[in-house]
Amino acid sequence: MSIGFATWQAAIDLALAEDIGDGDVTAQSTIPASATATGEMLMKQAGVISGLEAARYVFARVDPAIEMTALVRDGDVVEVGDIIVRLAGPARTLLTAERTALNLLQRLSGTATMTAAFVGAVSGTNAIIVDTRKTTPGLRALEKQAVRHGGGNNHRFGLSDGVLIKDNHLAAIGGPDRVTKAVRAARANAPHTMKIEVEVTTLAETAEAVAAGADIIMLDNMSNDEMAEAVKLVAGQALTEASGGVRLDTVRAIAETGVDLISVGALTHSAPSLDISLNFVIGDS
Amino acid sequence: MSIGFATWQAAIDLALAEDIGDGDVTAQSTIPASATATGEMLMKQAGVISGLEAARYVFARVDPAIEMTALVRDGDVVEVGDIIVRLAGPARTLLTAERTALNLLQRLSGTATMTAAFVGAVSGTNAIIVDTRKTTPGLRALEKQAVRHGGGNNHRFGLSDGVLIKDNHLAAIGGPDRVTKAVRAARANAPHTMKIEVEVTTLAETAEAVAAGADIIMLDNMSNDEMAEAVKLVAGQALTEASGGVRLDTVRAIAETGVDLISVGALTHSAPSLDISLNFVIGDS
Amino acid sequence: MSIGFATWQAAIDLALAEDIGDGDVTAQSTIPASATATGEMLMKQAGVISGLEAARYVFARVDPAIEMTALVRDGDVVEVGDIIVRLAGPARTLLTAERTALNLLQRLSGTATMTAAFVGAVSGTNAIIVDTRKTTPGLRALEKQAVRHGGGNNHRFGLSDGVLIKDNHLAAIGGPDRVTKAVRAARANAPHTMKIEVEVTTLAETAEAVAAGADIIMLDNMSNDEMAEAVKLVAGQALTEASGGVRLDTVRAIAETGVDLISVGALTHSAPSLDISLNFVIGDS
Amino acid sequence: MSIGFATWQAAIDLALAEDIGDGDVTAQSTIPASATATGEMLMKQAGVISGLEAARYVFARVDPAIEMTALVRDGDVVEVGDIIVRLAGPARTLLTAERTALNLLQRLSGTATMTAAFVGAVSGTNAIIVDTRKTTPGLRALEKQAVRHGGGNNHRFGLSDGVLIKDNHLAAIGGPDRVTKAVRAARANAPHTMKIEVEVTTLAETAEAVAAGADIIMLDNMSNDEMAEAVKLVAGQALTEASGGVRLDTVRAIAETGVDLISVGALTHSAPSLDISLNFVIGDS
Amino acid sequence: MSIGFATWQAAIDLALAEDIGDGDVTAQSTIPASATATGEMLMKQAGVISGLEAARYVFARVDPAIEMTALVRDGDVVEVGDIIVRLAGPARTLLTAERTALNLLQRLSGTATMTAAFVGAVSGTNAIIVDTRKTTPGLRALEKQAVRHGGGNNHRFGLSDGVLIKDNHLAAIGGPDRVTKAVRAARANAPHTMKIEVEVTTLAETAEAVAAGADIIMLDNMSNDEMAEAVKLVAGQALTEASGGVRLDTVRAIAETGVDLISVGALTHSAPSLDISLNFVIGDS
Amino acid sequence: MSIGFATWQAAIDLALAEDIGDGDVTAQSTIPASATATGEMLMKQAGVISGLEAARYVFARVDPAIEMTALVRDGDVVEVGDIIVRLAGPARTLLTAERTALNLLQRLSGTATMTAAFVGAVSGTNAIIVDTRKTTPGLRALEKQAVRHGGGNNHRFGLSDGVLIKDNHLAAIGGPDRVTKAVRAARANAPHTMKIEVEVTTLAETAEAVAAGADIIMLDNMSNDEMAEAVKLVAGQALTEASGGVRLDTVRAIAETGVDLISVGALTHSAPSLDISLNFVIGDS
Repeated sequence: MSIGFATWQAAIDLALAEDIGDGDVTAQSTIPASATATGEMLMKQAGVISGLEAARYVFARVDPAIEMTALVRDGDVVEVGDIIVRLAGPARTLLTAERTALNLLQRLSGTATMTAAFVGAVSGTNAIIVDTRKTTPGLRALEKQAVRHGGGNNHRFGLSDGVLIKDNHLAAIGGPDRVTKAVRAARANAPHTMKIEVEVTTLAETAEAVAAGADIIMLDNMSNDEMAEAVKLVAGQALTEASGGVRLDTVRAIAETGVDLISVGALTHSAPSLDISLNFVIGDS
Repeated sequence: MSIGFATWQAAIDLALAEDIGDGDVTAQSTIPASATATGEMLMKQAGVISGLEAARYVFARVDPAIEMTALVRDGDVVEVGDIIVRLAGPARTLLTAERTALNLLQRLSGTATMTAAFVGAVSGTNAIIVDTRKTTPGLRALEKQAVRHGGGNNHRFGLSDGVLIKDNHLAAIGGPDRVTKAVRAARANAPHTMKIEVEVTTLAETAEAVAAGADIIMLDNMSNDEMAEAVKLVAGQALTEASGGVRLDTVRAIAETGVDLISVGALTHSAPSLDISLNFVIGDS
Repeated sequence: MSIGFATWQAAIDLALAEDIGDGDVTAQSTIPASATATGEMLMKQAGVISGLEAARYVFARVDPAIEMTALVRDGDVVEVGDIIVRLAGPARTLLTAERTALNLLQRLSGTATMTAAFVGAVSGTNAIIVDTRKTTPGLRALEKQAVRHGGGNNHRFGLSDGVLIKDNHLAAIGGPDRVTKAVRAARANAPHTMKIEVEVTTLAETAEAVAAGADIIMLDNMSNDEMAEAVKLVAGQALTEASGGVRLDTVRAIAETGVDLISVGALTHSAPSLDISLNFVIGDS
Repeated sequence: MSIGFATWQAAIDLALAEDIGDGDVTAQSTIPASATATGEMLMKQAGVISGLEAARYVFARVDPAIEMTALVRDGDVVEVGDIIVRLAGPARTLLTAERTALNLLQRLSGTATMTAAFVGAVSGTNAIIVDTRKTTPGLRALEKQAVRHGGGNNHRFGLSDGVLIKDNHLAAIGGPDRVTKAVRAARANAPHTMKIEVEVTTLAETAEAVAAGADIIMLDNMSNDEMAEAVKLVAGQALTEASGGVRLDTVRAIAETGVDLISVGALTHSAPSLDISLNFVIGDS
Repeated sequence: MSIGFATWQAAIDLALAEDIGDGDVTAQSTIPASATATGEMLMKQAGVISGLEAARYVFARVDPAIEMTALVRDGDVVEVGDIIVRLAGPARTLLTAERTALNLLQRLSGTATMTAAFVGAVSGTNAIIVDTRKTTPGLRALEKQAVRHGGGNNHRFGLSDGVLIKDNHLAAIGGPDRVTKAVRAARANAPHTMKIEVEVTTLAETAEAVAAGADIIMLDNMSNDEMAEAVKLVAGQALTEASGGVRLDTVRAIAETGVDLISVGALTHSAPSLDISLNFVIGDS
Repeated sequence: MSIGFATWQAAIDLALAEDIGDGDVTAQSTIPASATATGEMLMKQAGVISGLEAARYVFARVDPAIEMTALVRDGDVVEVGDIIVRLAGPARTLLTAERTALNLLQRLSGTATMTAAFVGAVSGTNAIIVDTRKTTPGLRALEKQAVRHGGGNNHRFGLSDGVLIKDNHLAAIGGPDRVTKAVRAARANAPHTMKIEVEVTTLAETAEAVAAGADIIMLDNMSNDEMAEAVKLVAGQALTEASGGVRLDTVRAIAETGVDLISVGALTHSAPSLDISLNFVIGDS
């Protein structure tokens, strides 16, 4: 168990339950029960691997008789043509589990690979690439781990482990000094182990956030020039985070504004799957 | 309960559990417990709505005191600027539930909207747009319903409710007459209520599938010319299904080959979210 | 995992939870913790075995230290006096698990054995014996598998994987052409992978169903003469299914009417358990 | 909540999940979403009602919009032609829930009715009719309640709430004084709130059980003459329980031997369902 | 599985889920993934061990690669300085599981140890020490087992496996003969396998309970003199149970009144944890 | 939903399942089904209330027909003799739910009350009282909320939402500069939203922690003099936390050392229950 406990496993169980239901009629009606098979997963694209533990969980749930041998580790960079996993077991259950396991591995490796691209793009700057809460239901722990495999870092996991005061919170508080009031309320009431982050949209709000003692200031949808100003203004008294519509072709310029963190929702909600094929050789034991 | 039972609800519960964990510290530390709010969901893009039931489920799970009033129905076509949902309730829990509910509605409406685009593109032909098993873990029932809201139809739900003999099954069976053997095995062993579908890649295999009595023949990654040939060859003795890399700009030409069905994985795995905003007005009761 | 995923396992877990609760007081108060035992299951009646996987699951859940060795396979025909399973393990937990495991095996073998009797009775005709949805809550996948072990075939698994238009649906649609309307609505709206089955009670409705393009026509509680007429009338344009009060002494005559399928609810709701005894030899390790 | 907590509800959830899966395609493809219906449950046989709470749970789970009004109470004696339940709600979901709800009500009323028949047969004697652990997985609490509705009483619920030393326990203990040893071990180790019951097959064992201080003595498969002897021998120092193959036509003679309790497995494992029909009138709201 | 089925495992799963959530950030950020460790649990106090099975379950759930070797058995008496468990496995997951496993073992051993103290204090009398329902949510089976490990015996497990008529029940029944009415109602309606226990507060009620045929009479908060009177009055016609505020320094005198049972809520709700330390030696494999 | 999602509800469900099992035999056998009751909860001790939401959940789960009216709010200070809750509903289910609801309320109010005592004891200093992870399995969210109701604040919720480097982590890292290495590793690898806390036992380690940039420094089992030194040394560059064996009679002196935080495990693992009685008046409707 190198990652979180239980939720992602429950999500995979749901995926298997909805896919397999009361049995794989095609495999059961066309493949003899005694047939065995071996298979291998082959990279059709280069990238960074993530999701081996999830794939292993899928095969084990569908049939403990399936043996999966990983030839690489999560976080490894692989090339086209690399074989990353070997499989052996009953042909029927291998065919049943194939799609779910492969989908997870492709999707999570896609996130790791996209993260590595963003991390590469800001190389040499001080900026750290982080993720967001825009993840797939139930798979958040796996997807955040994939970001780490790709060299990124994680933002808060969910609503309970970090304070992030956003526009709607500020609107709820109201008044000209709402940033100050919000930061102070959070400082007084939230656990002392948590940093206080607040979203600002102007330089004036940035200054107010610094004065109020925010630990992290999210610069929401600012221009690069504004962000560079904001970074100067903050002057190391808080971390600064760029947020909003960051793309691979714009991330370097953002990093060069001097921000500490750049959050990229696309890492988890829009990373294209990494292309991996799974081919079986089927025999009869 | 207009759709499937339980699995999607369990998936939403997982999403809430991982997001909310032991409580929304930001809302709890910055918003008074007694504050109430009203909100409205506003369309920032035109499209087809799907997911109102899922959104309603989210709000009810987070706080039964939240009232959600839908001004439209799933399947309705909406325009930019339309208000589709009104909300009222405790400010804290509205803020806590907001993101999960909105994400589901945006994602499912995205699927319905993309489906409607594909259905529109083949209008006037006989082709029906159908989905695949490439869905989000746990949300399959919701996503397949979104396809119906967009005017598409559904392929089999999972491995247990339809026979689809694919390349790996054929490889497992082997021999020059493997299509025939596979279709016959399925006919003999699968429930009589199920149609037998087989994937073919050549005209020769198409002919073999027809002769073997397949009910549906999936033409996998054939050129449009080949598909037109295949449709002629099948001559109504089975349904034909085009599959593989179908895009909005290529779907019409595919439909014009005369195929009965066109399956589009992108409807569920790559539909961009429909942009919907949720704005709150917060007071104190 | 040769059958469906999870539901039957959850049902067995419930059975164990309600039976064992917080522990087997009798075993714990009368048998030393260190006592071990071996046991064997002995056929007291001849029949067809089904349920070995379920029995294995029970023993594994109660105590992974129990070893169960099956001497036969599901689907095997066994005689009085045959030993089908050997057991070894801690005496206490063997006594705790015994009843639940044996009950499942007796009940499922009962279904397989009754199915084999019906299949034998129609031997030489074209009729196939199929089951219904009248199954034990949570055990449907196991019971439908038992029907296959007995040589029968399965009707749809549940409401989501087959269209079966029954009297109440027809009543809901109404009008003199309600069969036609119902079949057409189903064709238009249900997944193309599903066959459309409709229940009829007269020859006129049979003709209407054929004309409407039904794939399967259920002849509900018709006399054998009427069924023979109906089969002629359908003339291979659809499958015909006899349904309603089929008994072992009437099934042959029904099969001889030429129907394709005969559904027998009794296979799952009224099959007498097959008599199997489980005797222990208990020692102290 | 007039009966046990949770297990039977979980069992019904499993039954609904396996039956409904991802939706009732027939209802959804043939009945308009806006159609409403009313229905009534009509007795086709006389008997004792049990299971109204279970039926209500089914309808509420499938669709909270369904209204179920019971015209009788569990335990009531009803006649052919009595209407016992009225239903109103969306036509689709009523059709979806119908079979599961009705099956439970028929099955549980069957148990209550058979129990009432056994209770009537021993009327005027001192014997009490009790059930066994041979119940349907997950439904034990409902079935034991049905026995009470029929005027019977309950044996222990499961392995954790009563000591019953059976042949296999005695074999495990061994020796000529195994009954004595077993009863004493149970007395020493089991909770003092539990009575100690032991199964005997001879008069000698009966005497030994009395001497050892058993609270209840199960007379297993004894002849009526032997049982009458055993009752005399026990002379009120323990309760006596007749067990094994008790039928409606033999139960009176057994009761007249003077035994205190007669356990009847058939009440839960072989009670024929009570025939109840459910007819809908469908409209469009 | 030497104790109850499933509930305590589910409770431990909840404890792990709430503690570990989406991963142990400290271990993951400071300890290399490849580091391994060995550890040993050392007694800092003398006492009676209970909870080895629970601890084993925790380690297995967190990481099946952890090996736990117990050097003692539940129920063993251990001394300061004894090593009771050795551990080996991945350093990260050992650190993650440590606290939960140790807490359970300390708490359950605390219950076993306190029970042994009470059992010792009444040594030579006939009184048996028993527990109550005042247990930790979800852990009742483990805590009742710990009482047995300490030499005590168990009262009823919960509301469904024993009749205990308390003051509120008597108030509900009312009238001067409410004890008689309550005992008779229970005798008539509760399963015959259960003993009937009634709570009394005076000698008059004690006499009434005996006359009504109660099996066990709970003497609630009586003085020792009253209890001695009550025991004489009951004269072996029922078991007597002392209840209410029993302490280690008062229990002997209570036992000497001649009561059969003494129930002590403190065994489960107030036993101090037994002090056990867990020290790791960490290497890199 | 003013606190965390789901885990505590699941824990209460387990508590109800193990307590109620298949039904409350005492209530069912002695109280008529039609009896109703009203009740009120009366303070026998003064204190701070917490747990009303949990109590409400218990009653709703056992029987939605029970009405609970709270006359106070969580966090309110109450006196002996105050009535805090009124109840009305079916007598049987009120008796069934009573103990579980009351236990939760007593326990959580005990935590709130003890917290208030500690908070009062340090009044006028800058120290904040915080809790630890030593909570009851499954009830952590409720217990941490109770600490807030008593005026305390929360430490991290679990392993996933805060970095706390303890002795075993430091041992695992090793070397003379292990504090520095550990803090730096955490800073590099943990989410930027989290503060880094490290446990130290000497002034030298304290200085090292400051230099390494720790956000919070836990002073483990230091004397008050050492702590005062440490606070001076830290000089506001990090928060300081006193930890280890803090008691009500020692906490003020600890606070006066100038530490920012004082963590008290006893708030959740050793708070005595607050004495609340629940008395019923039972009638027959």
